[in-house]
Amino acid sequence: MPEISKRAQLTPASPIRKFLPLAQKAKEAGVKVYALSSGDPDYQVPPAFFKAVKSYKAKTLNYAPSSGILEHTQAWQKYYLSLGVKIPTENIVPTSGCAEAILFALYAATDPGDEVLVFEPVYVSYKSFAVMAGITLKPVRLKPENGYALPSLSEIEEQISPKTRAIVVINPDNPTGKLWSKKELLMVLELAKKHNLFVIADETYREIRFSGQPECLLKYSNFKDRVILTDSVSKRFSMPGARIGCVASQNPEVMAAALRFAQARLSVGTLEQLGTAPLLKKAKGITDKAKQEYSGRCGIVSQALAKIRGVTFRPPQGAFYMIAQLPIADAEDFVKFMLTKFSYKNQTVLVAPMQDFYLTPGLGKNEIRIACVLKKPDLKIAMEILKLGLEAYKKNLSA
Amino acid sequence: MPEISKRAQLTPASPIRKFLPLAQKAKEAGVKVYALSSGDPDYQVPPAFFKAVKSYKAKTLNYAPSSGILEHTQAWQKYYLSLGVKIPTENIVPTSGCAEAILFALYAATDPGDEVLVFEPVYVSYKSFAVMAGITLKPVRLKPENGYALPSLSEIEEQISPKTRAIVVINPDNPTGKLWSKKELLMVLELAKKHNLFVIADETYREIRFSGQPECLLKYSNFKDRVILTDSVSKRFSMPGARIGCVASQNPEVMAAALRFAQARLSVGTLEQLGTAPLLKKAKGITDKAKQEYSGRCGIVSQALAKIRGVTFRPPQGAFYMIAQLPIADAEDFVKFMLTKFSYKNQTVLVAPMQDFYLTPGLGKNEIRIACVLKKPDLKIAMEILKLGLEAYKKNLSA
Repeated sequence: MPEISKRAQLTPASPIRKFLPLAQKAKEAGVKVYALSSGDPDYQVPPAFFKAVKSYKAKTLNYAPSSGILEHTQAWQKYYLSLGVKIPTENIVPTSGCAEAILFALYAATDPGDEVLVFEPVYVSYKSFAVMAGITLKPVRLKPENGYALPSLSEIEEQISPKTRAIVVINPDNPTGKLWSKKELLMVLELAKKHNLFVIADETYREIRFSGQPECLLKYSNFKDRVILTDSVSKRFSMPGARIGCVASQNPEVMAAALRFAQARLSVGTLEQLGTAPLLKKAKGITDKAKQEYSGRCGIVSQALAKIRGVTFRPPQGAFYMIAQLPIADAEDFVKFMLTKFSYKNQTVLVAPMQDFYLTPGLGKNEIRIACVLKKPDLKIAMEILKLGLEAYKKNLSA
Repeated sequence: MPEISKRAQLTPASPIRKFLPLAQKAKEAGVKVYALSSGDPDYQVPPAFFKAVKSYKAKTLNYAPSSGILEHTQAWQKYYLSLGVKIPTENIVPTSGCAEAILFALYAATDPGDEVLVFEPVYVSYKSFAVMAGITLKPVRLKPENGYALPSLSEIEEQISPKTRAIVVINPDNPTGKLWSKKELLMVLELAKKHNLFVIADETYREIRFSGQPECLLKYSNFKDRVILTDSVSKRFSMPGARIGCVASQNPEVMAAALRFAQARLSVGTLEQLGTAPLLKKAKGITDKAKQEYSGRCGIVSQALAKIRGVTFRPPQGAFYMIAQLPIADAEDFVKFMLTKFSYKNQTVLVAPMQDFYLTPGLGKNEIRIACVLKKPDLKIAMEILKLGLEAYKKNLSA
């Protein structure tokens, strides 16, 4: 029997998704599970999407061009213009969510054996993509006690080697909920310039920020050759099941490569490209409402967390995640406990243990990530259950 | 300005897709272009697909599970059972077309620096995926004068090294239209066993075969640990724009890895998983009709090609492609000529030059691939135009 590859062995299971089978078992046993693990909101999709999809008239369903359906890339173009970014449609290639955009950006920037700098904790898919692409992520730690602020330049430069090819900036950040200040962004861009690196700007949560205006790194014309934007409609339009994102850059060589990668896998969903075009053209009304909603949801979770003894956290400034430090040693064990041994009035909560979001071994063992993806009344109940579960878990440990 | 990676530079542009901008220009100049370059049929999608998509009722559009929507994987399971293959739903992971399934299979089987054996000419996306994954494809040539038959074992073994991890078998084959005989399949499977290799079985065109019964390599239980199936609904249900395929294997380690790869990019289109489930459950009626249709289409192209002086070809046994050797030196130049300098009654034809389907430099320069994807009357006209274009091209060269 042939052995699977080393990269296959090393690609981690998603800490967000690996507990779904246990959650399923709990559900089958009649327990209601409040899922706060995945960034998968219960928030309504703008009806214009379904209207466009359902009005599809053709009897064939052909490949879209690898460069995207023109109406769709023009809609992205218009959307970026509303953020102050002028970009040709040729410099926008639709992808299957932000995930594929990240993979294309990594392929464009790196060869096997190269290194990419990330801030940890980091969105876990980066770890998998790095293994798949044969590269190494080098972590720079953001600390909750500093509000996840950028550390000193020297601390960052310590992780840069001759093999480093890119720095990843997720803004607003998943999982920390950090908003990058203009000063921090410029520091990273200047650092990239100094070391001749690409900057992979992951702006999936762009408009879900609770202060200031949406940022887009494509706007910084001094750095236009080094910024590779990875984007997605999943969160801002609440439609992760559509699998629509894009990779965009003002660097024509990066985009020519992205198009070749895109050609290899042919195209992105035809129906969803058509369905999202009207939303991209009128994004602001939709995203303003979404921002309001998630601001309220995060507020409720913050208030509830503040009342649980021994728990510390930083209220998020954007995205819809927050990290909580729990007064226990092993958050993964706690997550399992909640699904297999605990319920309150036949209800329990699923959150994501943070350990796998770190690259440095040993970090995050007492942390969980909470995704504020449920309606406010549900979040209130879920947080109450989390509190009771935590008490029960501690009691169970000391018993 | 940072340089893009070597793999980005080496990833080839698709010879199928790279002429689309020229075709677009011809269209804009009022010329009707018969597109026989891409496997993108004008054949109708089974209406049950659109019915299912349009009856989607939820107001949210959530991620599907990475392991697939259960109704969808159960439909694949039922479909495979109709081919005599018993496989648990856990051993089927939906992918974004066969393309992503191939990428997952390559990731599962290989590490950067490894080698994979392919038969050339080979479907071009393999070349791109190999570069992206940091591996090398080693070609074994199939020759038209032998009807693309498998060469001797010793010829194949010459290309196997200690770095070889897998053999790719596309059946029916794209681009040759070859059907693999049971004897040939068993020879390859035995060879894989002898050298402890995986077999990546690409069966996108399974039912589009003009003799015999659909084959599925998952059926060969003696080789179950080494077969990785990559599949797609794109051709058999005529819906490449849906981006639905799957990777399947009886090897649990391969599937655990495939699921981890799938988790990294989260999920495949929710609407299309729901839409294709009813088709997979009742595939035979649909695929029987498709087979009939493509048999007729390929027959028309064969008849027309037979009448063009100096052209040689092998009538396809399956899929819907055929390779033609033209009486010219540079097929790529001819394809450009057809789009930029030739038209007949304001019509022209786009075909794919074959050179890039080969790995061995210098092969295929006088060859084109014709995809029989248009209705019969259109194919008749297109072949007439191709004949006239060829005459004009030769005259133009000698002028």
